[in-house]
Amino acid sequence: MTDIKARIEAANAKALDIIRTGTPSLIDVGPAIDIVPGMAKNMIMHSGPAIAWRDMCGPHRNGVIGAALFEGLAGSADEAQAMLDRGEIVVSPCHDHLSVGAGAGIISASTPMLVVENTTFGNRAYSCISEGGGLRLLKWGAYDDTVLKNLAWQAKTFGPVLKAALQKSGPIDIKAIISRAVEMGDECHNRSIAATSLFLREIYPHIMTLDLPRDDIRASVKFLVDSEHFLLHAIMASAKAVLVPAEGIPYCTVVTAMARNGVDFGIKVSALGDNWFTAPANPVKGLYFRAEWDDSCAAPDLGDSAITETVGLGGFIQPAAPTVTQYVHGNLASAIANTHQMQQICVGTNPDIRIPAMDFTPGPIAIDVRKVVHTGITPLLDTAITHKEGGLIGAGEVHAPMGCFADALRAFAQHVESQSA
Amino acid sequence: MTDIKARIEAANAKALDIIRTGTPSLIDVGPAIDIVPGMAKNMIMHSGPAIAWRDMCGPHRNGVIGAALFEGLAGSADEAQAMLDRGEIVVSPCHDHLSVGAGAGIISASTPMLVVENTTFGNRAYSCISEGGGLRLLKWGAYDDTVLKNLAWQAKTFGPVLKAALQKSGPIDIKAIISRAVEMGDECHNRSIAATSLFLREIYPHIMTLDLPRDDIRASVKFLVDSEHFLLHAIMASAKAVLVPAEGIPYCTVVTAMARNGVDFGIKVSALGDNWFTAPANPVKGLYFRAEWDDSCAAPDLGDSAITETVGLGGFIQPAAPTVTQYVHGNLASAIANTHQMQQICVGTNPDIRIPAMDFTPGPIAIDVRKVVHTGITPLLDTAITHKEGGLIGAGEVHAPMGCFADALRAFAQHVESQSA
Repeated sequence: MTDIKARIEAANAKALDIIRTGTPSLIDVGPAIDIVPGMAKNMIMHSGPAIAWRDMCGPHRNGVIGAALFEGLAGSADEAQAMLDRGEIVVSPCHDHLSVGAGAGIISASTPMLVVENTTFGNRAYSCISEGGGLRLLKWGAYDDTVLKNLAWQAKTFGPVLKAALQKSGPIDIKAIISRAVEMGDECHNRSIAATSLFLREIYPHIMTLDLPRDDIRASVKFLVDSEHFLLHAIMASAKAVLVPAEGIPYCTVVTAMARNGVDFGIKVSALGDNWFTAPANPVKGLYFRAEWDDSCAAPDLGDSAITETVGLGGFIQPAAPTVTQYVHGNLASAIANTHQMQQICVGTNPDIRIPAMDFTPGPIAIDVRKVVHTGITPLLDTAITHKEGGLIGAGEVHAPMGCFADALRAFAQHVESQSA
Repeated sequence: MTDIKARIEAANAKALDIIRTGTPSLIDVGPAIDIVPGMAKNMIMHSGPAIAWRDMCGPHRNGVIGAALFEGLAGSADEAQAMLDRGEIVVSPCHDHLSVGAGAGIISASTPMLVVENTTFGNRAYSCISEGGGLRLLKWGAYDDTVLKNLAWQAKTFGPVLKAALQKSGPIDIKAIISRAVEMGDECHNRSIAATSLFLREIYPHIMTLDLPRDDIRASVKFLVDSEHFLLHAIMASAKAVLVPAEGIPYCTVVTAMARNGVDFGIKVSALGDNWFTAPANPVKGLYFRAEWDDSCAAPDLGDSAITETVGLGGFIQPAAPTVTQYVHGNLASAIANTHQMQQICVGTNPDIRIPAMDFTPGPIAIDVRKVVHTGITPLLDTAITHKEGGLIGAGEVHAPMGCFADALRAFAQHVESQSA
């Protein structure tokens, strides 16, 4: 038993080292069909663990239908649903394709994808591009002419402009931007305005030099300037790129993915490979943006953005972003208490993420399934609140459900037994 | 006596209201000779209270000589000194011209000046443009070919580009940028990276649309991107624009300017008009950027940037920028203690400046000379450290000397007596 415990500790230390030494850089942009492993013309990717089309919640259903219309796979919502029912259009989780999507996480063949390379280990991960601000976006399970027109513009114009700018700039070091943004009031999940601004400072001089139509460049710059959360998607792809090399380590109990599909919350654990362990997603506690909305309107917690907490950002470092705690009527003391809780379920700390309001204490990182189960503390996520019929309606925080961690730990015990047998 | 106390309280409440309701916007850029009241071709402005050329410290002397060479007033440093000795070149404090300059605050006829309008009261104030990063700049009392070449480029190219961009953008609301930057880790004196980034987000789309040579636009964008403290100068001009309408209020004991010339620290007090009250400037306590530098190299506290503390930024809200406290080995608790001290010497608080790490407590604003003298607490300034022979060598904090406040209060008492007599 001591031997097994030592093996686990060694495996977890290795995972911690891998996660801490990852160096994600944004290197390219291109259509999902050209870039994302396993992507197909009739495939629509979604956030969270795998889920059948028929079991999806409102935002995911709407997002998938919207994407089918955007791609011209179907001419109407009814036709799209029939094709999905017949399996002529297929759905697949982003995480199965080294990808992550915010909100409903809807990604189709034409979606321009950010390509992030973890230069330490040479692996890549992907995320769609932010659709900009606003409450009605495909990622919030909304589709209408404005949404579809914006998606078409992103695919035709903005994606190529950003790709060309990245070719001029060379890799943009997202790790360095995150470190600095955390000093500037971002926890890099519900708030990424500083990260976005720092990114813009790096990319602008290169956008200026592009030999592309000036109207396209101007429209792209306006879009970037208006998108306060633009860099969140690159941060998410960076988190995924950092976590992939920590997958599949024997005896390792570190969580390598957390994601929600609006029905279930799922986690992956290093030693247990590609298996999702799931439990029903919790309701989000937070602030609704309009008086007309309340808990009865809200879909459960959803999106792949929990990948940020999986690398110790977002809810794990709330005191870095006191503005975010205001959504839940919190204060700095409660935010610090939350970080102290997250310290109890993590393997270690991240010297590159230092929390100013805690005298630059390094943030907790690398969730240990054992510690979650033993302490009874589940990961705390900052997150948006989505209307159950689609649309962004608020923001707040939510705890992961315990069930998936308990199941994973049981599976881990069986796995260890089978290895020892 | 009660009557006088009530008059003072009413006058101070009026000053507080004027300062809090000021709305500074950046509206224009142009050469000092065209814009600054009282500017002359043979005049060189400097930071701090008035000081004779022969009494200036190293950084100010070097800065003045550098400006004389930049303007072509003299062909050599020796000639410049002789002309200054003979009064053919004159020196004058920035504050006498509704202007503020960081460091030595050197401004000459060709210097491109930021024009800030306080739209609430319709008055304007001015500051030179940041020379960018680096340790050797005219404002740090350094002049060489690189420095002079950069000044010439700013006057010929960058100033006109920024002017044209501001014509496109319309007024840029600096008050709103400051409010937001304070949520993003800036105290807006020693740290203004967030404010600068927020400004760049606003100005970039307009720079893109300029019908000016592309090389000039590219060079200007590169300069802006590389200048982490760019917006400090606009913040300083904004602070001055906000304070001017609070000058000259009978019975008002609010400080309307603080500035240092490297020899003396000077203050102005509302009821006492244009008089400077001065005391020897204190040495700055802080971090030197290289091991070769220590206290023996440093000039005393200097620059007009203390105008930021005069409107409750910088050292008054240190907990908003924990990074800055690191220069003096401080921690969040010491920063909060410093803000609590500043609360004791201020008339009120500023609802537009809220400190995240103090649960969004509004920052203290409007220094009351009476409270300074009665508590024995002088204003705390964040500031740079300048080499006594010129050049930036560190950053830290410094307390204003008590002498100038004590003198001002005595003068105020005499003033009140003379009014009552």
